[in-house]
Amino acid sequence: MRVVRVFTGEDVRYGLADAASITLITDEPFSAWETDDVISMTGARLMPPAMPTKIVCVGINYKQHAREMGHDLPTEPLIFLKPPTSMNAPGGEIHLPPGAGRVDYEGELAVVIGKRTHRVSVDEALSHVLGYTCANDVTARDLQKRDGQWTRAKGFDGFCPLGPWVETDLDPSDLQIETFVNGELRQSARTSDMIFDVATLVSAISHTMTLLPGDTVLTGTPSGVGELHAGDTVEVRIQGIGSLSNRVV
Amino acid sequence: MRVVRVFTGEDVRYGLADAASITLITDEPFSAWETDDVISMTGARLMPPAMPTKIVCVGINYKQHAREMGHDLPTEPLIFLKPPTSMNAPGGEIHLPPGAGRVDYEGELAVVIGKRTHRVSVDEALSHVLGYTCANDVTARDLQKRDGQWTRAKGFDGFCPLGPWVETDLDPSDLQIETFVNGELRQSARTSDMIFDVATLVSAISHTMTLLPGDTVLTGTPSGVGELHAGDTVEVRIQGIGSLSNRVV
Repeated sequence: MRVVRVFTGEDVRYGLADAASITLITDEPFSAWETDDVISMTGARLMPPAMPTKIVCVGINYKQHAREMGHDLPTEPLIFLKPPTSMNAPGGEIHLPPGAGRVDYEGELAVVIGKRTHRVSVDEALSHVLGYTCANDVTARDLQKRDGQWTRAKGFDGFCPLGPWVETDLDPSDLQIETFVNGELRQSARTSDMIFDVATLVSAISHTMTLLPGDTVLTGTPSGVGELHAGDTVEVRIQGIGSLSNRVV
Repeated sequence: MRVVRVFTGEDVRYGLADAASITLITDEPFSAWETDDVISMTGARLMPPAMPTKIVCVGINYKQHAREMGHDLPTEPLIFLKPPTSMNAPGGEIHLPPGAGRVDYEGELAVVIGKRTHRVSVDEALSHVLGYTCANDVTARDLQKRDGQWTRAKGFDGFCPLGPWVETDLDPSDLQIETFVNGELRQSARTSDMIFDVATLVSAISHTMTLLPGDTVLTGTPSGVGELHAGDTVEVRIQGIGSLSNRVV
C-alpha cells in the first residue's frame, strides 16, 4: 500500500496511490478509515506523505560515509532533529539560503511511525512502523562544521524533502538506495550496510523520546555526499519505494 | 495578561489567569477569541502554556555559563532543538531515565511566538512574541558530552518543564532569573547578562527556520547548573512571570 498526502485544491487529504490514481481516505492512515473519492495521479499535487511532530535523524549510520566524513564508527545511534518546517514536498524547490555557503544532498531511507512508540524492544520495533519513504537530509556543510551542533545547518525551511509516498509493505533490511544529481549517480549503497538497522534505531530512539504516529526517522546517508548548486535537480531513489526529485533554486 | 492552558476534566483549554481564577477563552490566544466560563485557580491542573511545533533552544547564551562550561563566547547564536514530547507541565514529575547518568537542571527564560515569523529584523522581532514563561532545559550531562550532538541528552520525555503561564506584558531585557533546588538558590542572574538578547535570538532563528504561533524559544541558562537527584524539587523563578516547580522521581 502506498500512502500519499495530496492537495485536492481545497485541502490536504491522505490517500492510497497506485500507478494511475489516488483513492482518498476519510481519516489518517494510523487508525480506522474508509475509502472516499478517487482522483487521477496525473497532475496530482503530492505533499510530504507524513505530518511528523518530530523528524529524528541518525548521523553516521553507513560505514563508508563514516570514513568519508572522518568519523569513528559509532557504538550507539547518534541522533539529531530537523524541525517540521524543514519538510519539503516531492517536486518542491530547495532554496539555497543566502550566506549559508556549501549545501549538500544526503539521500536517506525514512521510516514513518504508525503508532505510539515508547521504549519498545528491537523485536517489537518494526510492528510500530507504518512504512518507508525517501528523504533528502539537505545540509549546509560549512555551517554544520562551524556550529558543532547540526540544527541550523540541517534545519532551514525546505531542507527535508520527503516522499513521494509511504510504502507500507516493504522489508527495509536490504534495499538499493541511490542519489542522482542532474541524472548522474552520486550515492549508491544498500541499506544492509547500515551500522544500526531500522529496528535497532526505532527501539533506541523510543528509549529517549516517545514516537507518535507520523513521526519520521531518517536513517542516515551512505557515502558520496556532495554539493548542490542552483539549477540542479536532485533525486533520491530507493528500491521498492520510488523516486523523490527536487530542484535547487 | 497571563495565558494558561488548563485541563478542565474534559479537555485542555486556553485561558487567562489572575491570582484566583482562570477565564477560559473560546480559541487560541494567537487570533480572535472571546471569553467563556470562569474556573477557580485553586486545584486547576495547569498544562504547559504553549503547544509548540518546535522548541528551539540556545546554547551558551550567558557569559558566566560559557565560562563554567569551558566554552569560548559564541559570535552568533548556537541553536538546537528539544522535541515536543519533552514538554512537561508545571508541577509535573521529571523522571530520571534509567542508565542516563548525571541529570542537570538549567533554568531559562522561554519566549512563546505569537505569529508566523520568517526572516524578521531585530527591530520587528518582539512584535512577533506572544509572551514569556519559565523553562527548565533538563539535560543528561554525561550523554551530552558522550554524544557531541545534544539531542538525546536534552530530548527525553519530560525534560522540558514549561510554565506556569505566558506573561504577555513584559520587557524581557533585564529580569531576575533564579533556580532553586529544595529551596536552595543555585542559579541567579539577570537576563541583561545574555550574550544575545531576545530580539536578536528571534530574528536570527527566523532566518533559518520559520517560527509558528506557539513555537517556543529557550534563551539559554545562566551559570550555576548542577545535578538533580530523585526526590528533589526544582524551581525556576523569573521576575514578572512567576515560578515553575517540578519534582524529580
